[in-house]
Amino acid sequence: MNVTLRGRTESFRTVAFDAQTNAVRLIEQRLLPHEFKIVCTGNFRETARAITDMVVRGAGAIGATAAYGLAQGALAFRGRDLNRFSTHVATVFQTLADARPTAVDPVNAMKDVLREMTRGQTVTEQQSLALAAAEEFANEDARHCAEIGRHGAKLIRNGMRVLTHCNAGWLAFVDVGSATAPLYAAQAQGKQFHVFCDETRPRSQGATLTAWELAQQKISHQIIADNAAGHLMQRGEIDLVIVGSDRTLGRTGEVANKIGTYTKAVLAARHKIPFYVAIPLSTIDWQLKRGRDIPIEDRHESEVLGAWGIIADPRQPATSGQRKKRAYVRVANPTSGARNPGFDVTPAELITGIITPVGIFKPGDLWSRRQKLGMKPEFTAETQKRQT
Amino acid sequence: MNVTLRGRTESFRTVAFDAQTNAVRLIEQRLLPHEFKIVCTGNFRETARAITDMVVRGAGAIGATAAYGLAQGALAFRGRDLNRFSTHVATVFQTLADARPTAVDPVNAMKDVLREMTRGQTVTEQQSLALAAAEEFANEDARHCAEIGRHGAKLIRNGMRVLTHCNAGWLAFVDVGSATAPLYAAQAQGKQFHVFCDETRPRSQGATLTAWELAQQKISHQIIADNAAGHLMQRGEIDLVIVGSDRTLGRTGEVANKIGTYTKAVLAARHKIPFYVAIPLSTIDWQLKRGRDIPIEDRHESEVLGAWGIIADPRQPATSGQRKKRAYVRVANPTSGARNPGFDVTPAELITGIITPVGIFKPGDLWSRRQKLGMKPEFTAETQKRQT
Repeated sequence: MNVTLRGRTESFRTVAFDAQTNAVRLIEQRLLPHEFKIVCTGNFRETARAITDMVVRGAGAIGATAAYGLAQGALAFRGRDLNRFSTHVATVFQTLADARPTAVDPVNAMKDVLREMTRGQTVTEQQSLALAAAEEFANEDARHCAEIGRHGAKLIRNGMRVLTHCNAGWLAFVDVGSATAPLYAAQAQGKQFHVFCDETRPRSQGATLTAWELAQQKISHQIIADNAAGHLMQRGEIDLVIVGSDRTLGRTGEVANKIGTYTKAVLAARHKIPFYVAIPLSTIDWQLKRGRDIPIEDRHESEVLGAWGIIADPRQPATSGQRKKRAYVRVANPTSGARNPGFDVTPAELITGIITPVGIFKPGDLWSRRQKLGMKPEFTAETQKRQT
Repeated sequence: MNVTLRGRTESFRTVAFDAQTNAVRLIEQRLLPHEFKIVCTGNFRETARAITDMVVRGAGAIGATAAYGLAQGALAFRGRDLNRFSTHVATVFQTLADARPTAVDPVNAMKDVLREMTRGQTVTEQQSLALAAAEEFANEDARHCAEIGRHGAKLIRNGMRVLTHCNAGWLAFVDVGSATAPLYAAQAQGKQFHVFCDETRPRSQGATLTAWELAQQKISHQIIADNAAGHLMQRGEIDLVIVGSDRTLGRTGEVANKIGTYTKAVLAARHKIPFYVAIPLSTIDWQLKRGRDIPIEDRHESEVLGAWGIIADPRQPATSGQRKKRAYVRVANPTSGARNPGFDVTPAELITGIITPVGIFKPGDLWSRRQKLGMKPEFTAETQKRQT
């Protein structure tokens, strides 16, 4: 999507690959919205660390990063011995798979790459097939997001006020985004609407990333505290909720997403406000039988106990010429600890529909429509093993 | 309640009066939890500003501050002309009443003082009656909170996990607190329990003030993001919710409290978790007929767009010898605005019970028990006028 830097608008992808230097190119998302910077990871371990440290985050973006990381690791291998190459690739795979335990996308993406590359007869062939497969994964991710936008834009009518949670925007994918895709598509169709961005504590991806995206795209929006959505719904000021998902269970329609998503779904149900989840197909877990079994990361308490930002004068508009000095401030009582679950699970009964690249489905219909939704039967046994 | 400073434990009230200097003594709550400091306001306009700027906040504390502020303003009058004195007192009253439009306590507290003082025949008599009435208001506030604790402690059983929102602790009153009173009383009875403090964005009074209080009192607790309560309820990790209230409608049982309270009530109802509101009687509005008519402050967007704290290293424990440099960091995208409603209204149907100094009531029973709950009929006409 577009980024305007010093008055000049350029088009970027969140994740790209530089074949000449064998480096993964990532937008350094932890610097946004205060600074726009591209970072390059020089080897697969750095790529895995970028996923763990949330330089890159979001279902599609970490999928593509892992796909490129696997290709990057494969390309770094020197030698012709296919057995030793396979052992090396398995190490690369596991390192990247361990980078974020809750997400299903890195593993699915790497399986795509692995399947393609193992068609090669030599190390060199497998290496170039790996890169081609990673590139195809990234391109497909961008195409699928555009399709999510095409289907989801039908839900947006002129004058609507749409609530989003966290960032399932183009920064969470290779391009376009999932939850934001309907917004971008509706804007392209000339529709007028307003977006409320939940700030999404503790990491504030709504206030930082989604708000940055919408501002770049010139879509009318305001940031709200996570506490405020209930009040706005009660006063009739929200017409539609669209969120993303880190993992959607194909068997039950349950959705694991950023902490607080479940709360917004409960509120939306009470107020009879349509609650939609926009997902690429790669986010669907066809194996797991119960949302309760999705592992929920307990993240570091410093995220809850404080906040990252740039030191500023709260009485001055942000656009005045302040020096951009980044800092973490500890907000909380210094002798108190925190509990910090990173994700929650929203049951199917609270979800109006799941917006996918191949159409909008009731959450309870995912399983019966699994062929259309691209379930790959050959993954079943292995995914099963990973989950238990 | 107790505060431990440099290893020495002393007892403090949130609001007190220094008759020698005609000053209101307040705990500077915006410095907490990083620094404990008493500030003195030298005249009624400074006292009103302390209420507006949230040096002091919370239903009982701003009531007592306004009561003392009215006495302070009356005592500052020089002369014997009762008419001019009354005009002066009316100005003082209005200035303090305008300091926080949503809260009902300052006005009710000042009416108490006004009724007592106007029994005096001379300016001097009225001045000393005003001070005595303000002192009695403060003492009564502390006694009532202790009674809330006595009734509410019955709800707390060994091993319970209790959720609180914002700060309705002793810092929100003259002493003891409302939502915290049952916790302190249960602790005094030797009960063991754990408290989850909602951080309560945007001003984070849960993470700062409630957590500070509980730490001073050595009650087991953890801070959570406002987004996390739904997840913890879903996993069966919360047994009871106790919150405070800025205004409770005696006719309907509706409760206006810090933004996000309504959300927690909706979640608690879904999970069949008892949701209690602890209030002093002065917080009950007997006049207003609909919660929708409670004016909701739209506060400055800088609260949502950033956070106040001390600059720290997130990887270091807070108790290590960091220099305490306070700062505001802008978290959000600099080209985005925010919407910042300060309060919300929780309907009676979501409230299990209202804990008062005279017992626990169903919200729908407040009106039929209005005599026991101390409705003062002489306030009715004037309160009505103020609301419309």
